[in-house]
Amino acid sequence: MVDSEVTSTRSRERTRQRLLDAAAQVFAEVGLDAASVEAICDRAGFTRGAFYSNFETKDELFLELSGLVATERVAAVRSRVGELEQEGGFDLTPTDAFAIIEQVLDLSADDRLGVLLMSEIRIHALRNPDLAAAYLEQEAEMQRGVAQIVADIGRAKGIRFRVTADEAARIMLLVWEGAAVRAAMGGVDAEELRRRTSTELALVAQLTIAD
Amino acid sequence: MVDSEVTSTRSRERTRQRLLDAAAQVFAEVGLDAASVEAICDRAGFTRGAFYSNFETKDELFLELSGLVATERVAAVRSRVGELEQEGGFDLTPTDAFAIIEQVLDLSADDRLGVLLMSEIRIHALRNPDLAAAYLEQEAEMQRGVAQIVADIGRAKGIRFRVTADEAARIMLLVWEGAAVRAAMGGVDAEELRRRTSTELALVAQLTIAD
Repeated sequence: MVDSEVTSTRSRERTRQRLLDAAAQVFAEVGLDAASVEAICDRAGFTRGAFYSNFETKDELFLELSGLVATERVAAVRSRVGELEQEGGFDLTPTDAFAIIEQVLDLSADDRLGVLLMSEIRIHALRNPDLAAAYLEQEAEMQRGVAQIVADIGRAKGIRFRVTADEAARIMLLVWEGAAVRAAMGGVDAEELRRRTSTELALVAQLTIAD
Repeated sequence: MVDSEVTSTRSRERTRQRLLDAAAQVFAEVGLDAASVEAICDRAGFTRGAFYSNFETKDELFLELSGLVATERVAAVRSRVGELEQEGGFDLTPTDAFAIIEQVLDLSADDRLGVLLMSEIRIHALRNPDLAAAYLEQEAEMQRGVAQIVADIGRAKGIRFRVTADEAARIMLLVWEGAAVRAAMGGVDAEELRRRTSTELALVAQLTIAD
């Protein structure tokens, strides 16, 4: 690439990222429906032209935002498991299953924002078949990532599961989501939200393991 | 009660029910936010005065609607389990766990509507602490109902669980909800929605049972 192309690409990526960040902020304040393209552009300091040369629709931007949330979560879990392995491995007794899950979920802030965002995107997907198809595909990708982690842990620790890695991933993601929504509803702080979600998740994780 | 009081009470109940039915219809068409008190009153053929003498707020009406959905589901499950008992009992081998769950979930129509309604109420609850508290209390009541059914089946069949009846109820309701949302997103018909939800639920139910 020549210099101007590199600059142009980086500039485009920065614009895209600023729009995504602005959208996340506006969304947090007013929700998905009220987060207009205009409000997002104002917040980001860009024109509608800049918006539409990056995103075809508002839905597309928010789907990408939720995809980032999902991808970050899976990456954080994988990296945490890797760290624990290096620190000397870990066993999966009931206490440790909780400890591990609590540690892997001890992730970045804004869990409540992620919960709100995913919940609102699901509502939109329930009434919009195109968005639904894209959401389900994104979720399938996240499930594959988690299933891979489950399978890797199983192999490394010689653990037998009562379900397939895919089934374990699917069930745990549903429980994670539901538990996180309830905790967020309870108006608790980020630490307590993670603690409650971890507890529920560890309970289910333990159930997937053969005695 | 004198005749006029009885008539007045019945009349009030009928008005309330007509408002609830109208609200369910309008909601199905345009969603929670766009389902105005005015639109609901128009559909029901009542004045705003009639609305507000029955419900303090729109949120209160929709919370009652979701409560009805929840109560009906638990009652249907309980009644179905009772029927199966009378038909000669049932075992809880893996095949039968699926068959039983499929049968108990073979309930009334409009599962998709129930999914939409509960999803939208949860969004509102995530941004409104008063509604959240009321929603969580309603959900706790539903969980108690399901936990009772789980405990009864356990006792009747001499089944040991790996978790408490409360935990089993909580986990299964989260999985039911998540699976139903995904099926509804998939745009499948009511029968397929129930089949997919049953499959996921039976998988988790089986996990809660000690080998």
